[in-house]
Amino acid sequence: MGGSSHHLRRHTPGDGVNVKREQLLLALDFGGTKLTAGLAAAGENRWQAHRMLPSPPGSNAQSDLEIMMELAREMLASPPSIPPNSGGEASPPSVPPNSGGEAKAPLAAVGVSFGGLVDAVRGLVLLSHHVPGWEGMPLREWLEERLGAPAAVDNDANAGALGEHRFGAGQGYDSLMYITVSTGVGGGWILNGQPWRGADGMAGEIGHTVVDPTGPVCLCGKRGCVERLASGPYIAQRAREWLKAQPDRGRILRALVGDDLKAITAKLVAQAAAQGDDLAWEALEVAAWGLGMGIGNAANLMNPQCFVLGGGVTKAGERFWEVVRRTARETALPEVHFDVVPAALGDDAPLWGAIALAEDLINT
Amino acid sequence: MGGSSHHLRRHTPGDGVNVKREQLLLALDFGGTKLTAGLAAAGENRWQAHRMLPSPPGSNAQSDLEIMMELAREMLASPPSIPPNSGGEASPPSVPPNSGGEAKAPLAAVGVSFGGLVDAVRGLVLLSHHVPGWEGMPLREWLEERLGAPAAVDNDANAGALGEHRFGAGQGYDSLMYITVSTGVGGGWILNGQPWRGADGMAGEIGHTVVDPTGPVCLCGKRGCVERLASGPYIAQRAREWLKAQPDRGRILRALVGDDLKAITAKLVAQAAAQGDDLAWEALEVAAWGLGMGIGNAANLMNPQCFVLGGGVTKAGERFWEVVRRTARETALPEVHFDVVPAALGDDAPLWGAIALAEDLINT
Repeated sequence: MGGSSHHLRRHTPGDGVNVKREQLLLALDFGGTKLTAGLAAAGENRWQAHRMLPSPPGSNAQSDLEIMMELAREMLASPPSIPPNSGGEASPPSVPPNSGGEAKAPLAAVGVSFGGLVDAVRGLVLLSHHVPGWEGMPLREWLEERLGAPAAVDNDANAGALGEHRFGAGQGYDSLMYITVSTGVGGGWILNGQPWRGADGMAGEIGHTVVDPTGPVCLCGKRGCVERLASGPYIAQRAREWLKAQPDRGRILRALVGDDLKAITAKLVAQAAAQGDDLAWEALEVAAWGLGMGIGNAANLMNPQCFVLGGGVTKAGERFWEVVRRTARETALPEVHFDVVPAALGDDAPLWGAIALAEDLINT
Repeated sequence: MGGSSHHLRRHTPGDGVNVKREQLLLALDFGGTKLTAGLAAAGENRWQAHRMLPSPPGSNAQSDLEIMMELAREMLASPPSIPPNSGGEASPPSVPPNSGGEAKAPLAAVGVSFGGLVDAVRGLVLLSHHVPGWEGMPLREWLEERLGAPAAVDNDANAGALGEHRFGAGQGYDSLMYITVSTGVGGGWILNGQPWRGADGMAGEIGHTVVDPTGPVCLCGKRGCVERLASGPYIAQRAREWLKAQPDRGRILRALVGDDLKAITAKLVAQAAAQGDDLAWEALEVAAWGLGMGIGNAANLMNPQCFVLGGGVTKAGERFWEVVRRTARETALPEVHFDVVPAALGDDAPLWGAIALAEDLINT
């Protein structure tokens, strides 16, 4: 540190070559239910602009793309919502990038997180989990033509991993698995500081690893996979089934929904558990156990330094975390060491990952 | 192909600069019960010499090292057992490398496969699974001093993966998991053509991933890990227990051991199964199922192109392989594609991996 801060550097005021121009990066997150865009300067870890819109019911690829382009153009056209602190040299974009050849190109690169199957190498969307019309869409090319900047596309789990690694709880770890536990259970790998996507771009599917082959059947057709035990909807379903079967138990949880079992969510299960409802806690404990088993198995297989856990279910409280950590620790061999830490970027992890993807385009 | 075979090349007979000198690579494999050494020329895929000695009972690190150095010196001192086909320029080693400064250095690099915990980055042995006295041994440095050539050290599972990848059934795959199923169940990863060792050098421990948490207890303390279901000794133990509990079954297997259940081995179980013994087949089927589950889970997590299976248990016949492949396929998501292929190098996979480690030392 001392060495580099003392090295001589010739400063020529006004010499444009030595002044570092701010490079704007655009991040787009095509989620299942919402579309989010963010703008940040390369090397900074705060948003200059951040917009979100729900994906309207009945939307398709074309309508989602139009909404997203609208968000992007708005952000690129208006001055940053937070003024840059880099001084007079910075030139906040004042015109949309495709409004004319004479304007300075304000946009350096675009990164995209997509909720579905993606061919990251070719920049293609293969399938959306939620929205029709995406099959085979050359999203990278499409964006590069319209925004006049290089683009990179990845799925939301890989983007989330990259986001937490570069800007969040995974900073300083060279290898990690990011796991998001909400409606589903997904994951992404960082190995040697880089995303590991797998041969089909499918790596990270910890949600569909089997940890209890005699367990309940999942939508995927298998029994006792991590998602079947730990995802939010399945936690709620389990609590509901147990309440029906055990009429004398779960008073706190019943009271929370006014005896309307259909209204039960994983969040309410966690709330009831925190208030001392044993049935609710047991329904949650199964999720923590399944997740911990999946993590322990993944630790034995890959021996990463860290697991970063995000998603709504991981907000279920310290007791939930304690079971996840203990089960993971007991499942992994004693010589296999790892941390299990909460994600830091919340729902924005994939969007920050998209920034990281964009950053890599200008730094290589 | 046509292009490169037609390009012009100036040949100056006797011009030493243009003649490629043969570079000899030494491979050492410290196994639990035997010590093996091999000598090969860089770029060739056959042994010039290959020697094996059992590790004597009561051996320790020092005695194993002495035996291994003896094997190495013998091989380096004697002419190759298979004459090189590279013509007059090749200079087979005629003196031990440390016998005097005047001799040409015949040995380009040394690679080591070690049956135990290894710090591959620092070239240290941390622990032998079988032999005392290895803790903290700086094996790389020790060998470099004595053999006068750069050395690299890895554990046997990683070396096996590298060997099959570079010289065996894994050629042409960019990502694979090598799994050896014999006394234990171990594994090693190749990702992007390179070994992935994990943060503690422990990656690849598929044998201790749990696939049946209600299953029998393993030596590792967990229930239903892959090794507990699929390793040779546990297959034999299962058959033995079932024969005791079910006196009317398993006639073929009983006959094979003359009713001496202690004599049952996994090999005999496979033999009885092949001859139509249902009990023997069921004992084997549990192993195939457990291994298939482990592979399917690993496929979902890492999405490698291929799994290469070696070790004695994988010689149990086509029916065993069929269950492994089917279970793996059913456990993995439909979008996750992979091959499951038999290893090609047999017991020599780690030794060939040691050659690959040595090769990498002279090619970087």
